[in-house]
Amino acid sequence: MRPVFALLLLSMPVLAQVPARDQGLLHLTATPNARLHPVPVRTVAFQAGFWKSRQDTTVRASIPTLLALLEEKGTLDNFRRLANPDASVPRRGPLYTDSDLYKWLEAAAWSLAIQPDPKLEATIDRTIDTILAAQEPSGYLNTWFTGERRSLRWTQQTSGHELYCLGHMTQAAIAYYRVTGKRKLLDGSIKFIDYLVRDFGPAPKQPLLTGHPELELALAELYRTTGNRQYLDLAAYLLSGVERERRKISNRDHVYLFAGRPFTDRTQFEGHAVRALSAATGAADYDLETGEPASRRTLDTLAADLSTSKMFVTGGVGSRASGEAFGDPFELPNRQAYTESCAAIAGMLFHHRMLAATGDARYADLIERALYNGINSGMSSNGTLYCYRNPLSATASDRIRNPWYDTCCCPPNLQRTFAALGAYFYSTSKDGLWVHLYDNSTLDWHLESGTPLKAQLKTGQPWRGDVELTLHPARAEEFTLYLRIPSWSLKTTVLVNGQAATAQPQPNTYLTLKRTWKPGDKITLTLDVETRLVYANPRVSEDYGKAAVQRGPILYAAEQTDNPGPEVFDLAIDHRNPISAEFRPALLGGITVLNHKGLAFDSTPSLYTFQPPSAAQPAAITLVPYYAFHGRGPANFTVWLPIR
Amino acid sequence: MRPVFALLLLSMPVLAQVPARDQGLLHLTATPNARLHPVPVRTVAFQAGFWKSRQDTTVRASIPTLLALLEEKGTLDNFRRLANPDASVPRRGPLYTDSDLYKWLEAAAWSLAIQPDPKLEATIDRTIDTILAAQEPSGYLNTWFTGERRSLRWTQQTSGHELYCLGHMTQAAIAYYRVTGKRKLLDGSIKFIDYLVRDFGPAPKQPLLTGHPELELALAELYRTTGNRQYLDLAAYLLSGVERERRKISNRDHVYLFAGRPFTDRTQFEGHAVRALSAATGAADYDLETGEPASRRTLDTLAADLSTSKMFVTGGVGSRASGEAFGDPFELPNRQAYTESCAAIAGMLFHHRMLAATGDARYADLIERALYNGINSGMSSNGTLYCYRNPLSATASDRIRNPWYDTCCCPPNLQRTFAALGAYFYSTSKDGLWVHLYDNSTLDWHLESGTPLKAQLKTGQPWRGDVELTLHPARAEEFTLYLRIPSWSLKTTVLVNGQAATAQPQPNTYLTLKRTWKPGDKITLTLDVETRLVYANPRVSEDYGKAAVQRGPILYAAEQTDNPGPEVFDLAIDHRNPISAEFRPALLGGITVLNHKGLAFDSTPSLYTFQPPSAAQPAAITLVPYYAFHGRGPANFTVWLPIR
Repeated sequence: MRPVFALLLLSMPVLAQVPARDQGLLHLTATPNARLHPVPVRTVAFQAGFWKSRQDTTVRASIPTLLALLEEKGTLDNFRRLANPDASVPRRGPLYTDSDLYKWLEAAAWSLAIQPDPKLEATIDRTIDTILAAQEPSGYLNTWFTGERRSLRWTQQTSGHELYCLGHMTQAAIAYYRVTGKRKLLDGSIKFIDYLVRDFGPAPKQPLLTGHPELELALAELYRTTGNRQYLDLAAYLLSGVERERRKISNRDHVYLFAGRPFTDRTQFEGHAVRALSAATGAADYDLETGEPASRRTLDTLAADLSTSKMFVTGGVGSRASGEAFGDPFELPNRQAYTESCAAIAGMLFHHRMLAATGDARYADLIERALYNGINSGMSSNGTLYCYRNPLSATASDRIRNPWYDTCCCPPNLQRTFAALGAYFYSTSKDGLWVHLYDNSTLDWHLESGTPLKAQLKTGQPWRGDVELTLHPARAEEFTLYLRIPSWSLKTTVLVNGQAATAQPQPNTYLTLKRTWKPGDKITLTLDVETRLVYANPRVSEDYGKAAVQRGPILYAAEQTDNPGPEVFDLAIDHRNPISAEFRPALLGGITVLNHKGLAFDSTPSLYTFQPPSAAQPAAITLVPYYAFHGRGPANFTVWLPIR
Repeated sequence: MRPVFALLLLSMPVLAQVPARDQGLLHLTATPNARLHPVPVRTVAFQAGFWKSRQDTTVRASIPTLLALLEEKGTLDNFRRLANPDASVPRRGPLYTDSDLYKWLEAAAWSLAIQPDPKLEATIDRTIDTILAAQEPSGYLNTWFTGERRSLRWTQQTSGHELYCLGHMTQAAIAYYRVTGKRKLLDGSIKFIDYLVRDFGPAPKQPLLTGHPELELALAELYRTTGNRQYLDLAAYLLSGVERERRKISNRDHVYLFAGRPFTDRTQFEGHAVRALSAATGAADYDLETGEPASRRTLDTLAADLSTSKMFVTGGVGSRASGEAFGDPFELPNRQAYTESCAAIAGMLFHHRMLAATGDARYADLIERALYNGINSGMSSNGTLYCYRNPLSATASDRIRNPWYDTCCCPPNLQRTFAALGAYFYSTSKDGLWVHLYDNSTLDWHLESGTPLKAQLKTGQPWRGDVELTLHPARAEEFTLYLRIPSWSLKTTVLVNGQAATAQPQPNTYLTLKRTWKPGDKITLTLDVETRLVYANPRVSEDYGKAAVQRGPILYAAEQTDNPGPEVFDLAIDHRNPISAEFRPALLGGITVLNHKGLAFDSTPSLYTFQPPSAAQPAAITLVPYYAFHGRGPANFTVWLPIR
């Protein structure tokens, strides 16, 4: 039986009526299969430190400059011209530009949660008015399929991005509703979706396919927000693949789109990386609500496929430029890596659902790997240059950081991720509080018992291992504190109020501290930020005989800028010599660099010889965080270095 | 000054009037800058051995079965329907199918030189009649740009393949003329080219561009065949890039097409591999005739670029499927390798010209590397399956050997190469005879002094190192015998009539034996076919820490078929253990396999760990020649193996 039909028979608990402002980043309070419940975005405030600086840049520089660019490139005019159809302004940009504005709106909405800004809020309100003025009475809203292209509506479902745009509209609407309580955009989104619910679905309704999956997760969140089961049913229908015949989906499209066949038939990630990961994220959301065994098995299979054979060490995903696609297992080329910022973010969203479902620290570890490295790399330190690709090696002639892309999906996607970031750091569960990631921050929220809880976290992360967490429950109460012990922290110590804890911290698990916590209780964690060499599975062809260098959550790269001697592509790690860490407050906003007495290969041997390569020349090597590659202009760099 | 204008001022020796049947594979007798002169195809006969068997398969199986397929797919009907325009038969296949038939014709023509076949000759004559019946009075001939597409002629020069087809028609025509003396097809080709000469060229004539370079080398050979300087001038014009403006060639197209800018501005191979190598081959032909320093410098630069950074160890070229293109320097991915058979052949044609110009043994070595490995792999042992791609690693699910491709460029290209192969083995120069490659063969030709010369070569190559060459000049005469010492023969011995020669054989050079050679003189060469590990430049990311295994000219691969234990992708060479050779007469037509006590990695470690991979498990490894991959059906295989 296909899920779409099964669903109609299921019963569900009525959604708890939680005020918009108290809904988590994912509002999972009433979700039956969610072990963890992310906190609302507004409840976490970063203090001076790594992510505070990134968030400030996002709010101060990225969000306003991108709005100016979206205006300049016609993204807003594409809506305005529809409210005034007599004007002869042509539509500009590719067919999916609406989604760029929606993602920007979501970023701007979340930014208000962490930094109220009446002027920005007024801008958002005006922008929403501009958008909704273009909505048709039926609810349909898309600036591409209008005028002379009106007759093409729903005829190009594999490439048309109509539902993709609606998905991002809905996500933006939910974000703005949660931050401000304003429902105007949300009502517009619901109007469009109600039109879909009415006219599309299994025969005799019209067939519908998400040619770029994305709407599924928005529908799940809309269901959580409104309690209207029809939205979850629509997601189930989209995931069911029942329209393979009616929409005449080719085998090639099944792979590329990651749609058009039952999600539960999937056994691996393939095709377009962002599509595949978005589909899996939507399916994970659906699974959180319904918990069907087939769906859970598929999700576990896909999660294992991703983490054991298709993820770069930076957390980036998507190996091939052709089709912006996943490669074969272990096909992880460093310089040719496509690793679109949007794909790494989609991977994080997927793992975020898997973490909520399981409480398995490995998912938090994968989130951390991507966030600190392959996602963080996507925006420049000044917040105005963006990466579409995030390769693990490049040359000075590769122009990777750019202020604008005609396909402008990544820039606002990075912004909405950084703006809402605090909510990824903490969750609650019925039995307590979870700390997933460590940065200077405060939490102002409550336990699920209802007891108000404040917490303050002070740390030198990601450069140092010290973490001090002070809990301020409104009253003493027994609950469990779940502290994530990262995979890289091999020797962790933990003190509670200065006393060694009885629980033994194990890497890649949550340390569970169950006790009656009193206001002012202090947990002192010392994470092990020893510099380590990372080795890949020997089947990863390009990484064999090499290592990446990791310190704490940060992956490093050798960039020519810091290495004036041999080309970085000729450098090798000398296994006999240590790698030392040095904090440089003035460099790239304050980073820890790594220094090593390594080796350099002769740069001009034959292409093929009967003699093994010699690396006799000593060479000083300095490594900087990968995320900052090309941060001082284009230069050769590489993450993986041969070891001798 | 651009070559095209300079040319008009140059004077040239009148071409020697050499009968068609005495013209070499390249007819370089009167070519001023050719040090070496390839022998006519008909003068070399392979005797029982490696290439005799390949050539027999080509003649007996490949050429006839491909003709049947070309008939079945409409390639000949595409011509017939033009002679009978009332018929409503639609044209079939992509726009360049004419060239597939021309390449087949060339293969069939050369096959008559080594094995006369009146029935095949009659078939060729009928096919030529079919082709020429479709030629227009102007000389224009192309089955795509007719009827409703007639108005598109010359408007799609970057993609239309009009000149590409003409180039292959001309090469087929020259081959058939040299083998049979028949000029009908040659006259048809000349008629088309004379039309080009009349109507196209620098303003005020119409602009012309080879969107797929190929015609250039055909024009040079037509010049050598006819003595008509206009054909060489047309080649010069095409290589000059003067039509960049008039044909509005984009920067992207300059790269992709390897045309539309002056050839002498090129500094590296880039873009579409077959196009680039064909352009370089044409330019090398032009350079052989004209010897301009700028052109020579460009050719040397490109040849170095190819051999030091862009050639696979199998002699394959073309790293990227996208654009069928060269990659960056050292971008040589094994499984993703595009390595089209046509590209490896184009590389061989390029190196053949460079060898003729220089007499540098390194070019013969590159020819050998490609011929025995990355070209030889392109046709199955039964002659009816062909590779378009020749990757260095693949799985059982990769379908690489196929009987037909809609873009059927590679199958007849392999056939024409194998049919004409003997002429690549011997050359003459003013001062003597050159032996480039070693297989059981006889030569029946003459020295350039005019003295008739027969030679007989007996060898166990490529499996054994013994070579015995017996010379039979019509009379005793002083000349130099140039014997190529392959790069892989590190310790070679040479005897002349049983006596140690005074000259010391050095790998990758020609051993020069200058003396008065008498009928019956015998040279005994013992090549060193010790099994060797080949190492790549450390910048070749996928090959670092690994080795390929080579024995004589043959590159080996580990294929699952011979290795029933661990997956071949988990195998590693144990540097402590030897690799032994074993001739197996019943396997794959008689091959030497290699056996080794190697190691196997654990197949299921994490994707990334802090522990270096261990390879503790011993594993017996059997290697077979790379060219035979998937020769017993699809299976996992790999050329490069980690060394522990």
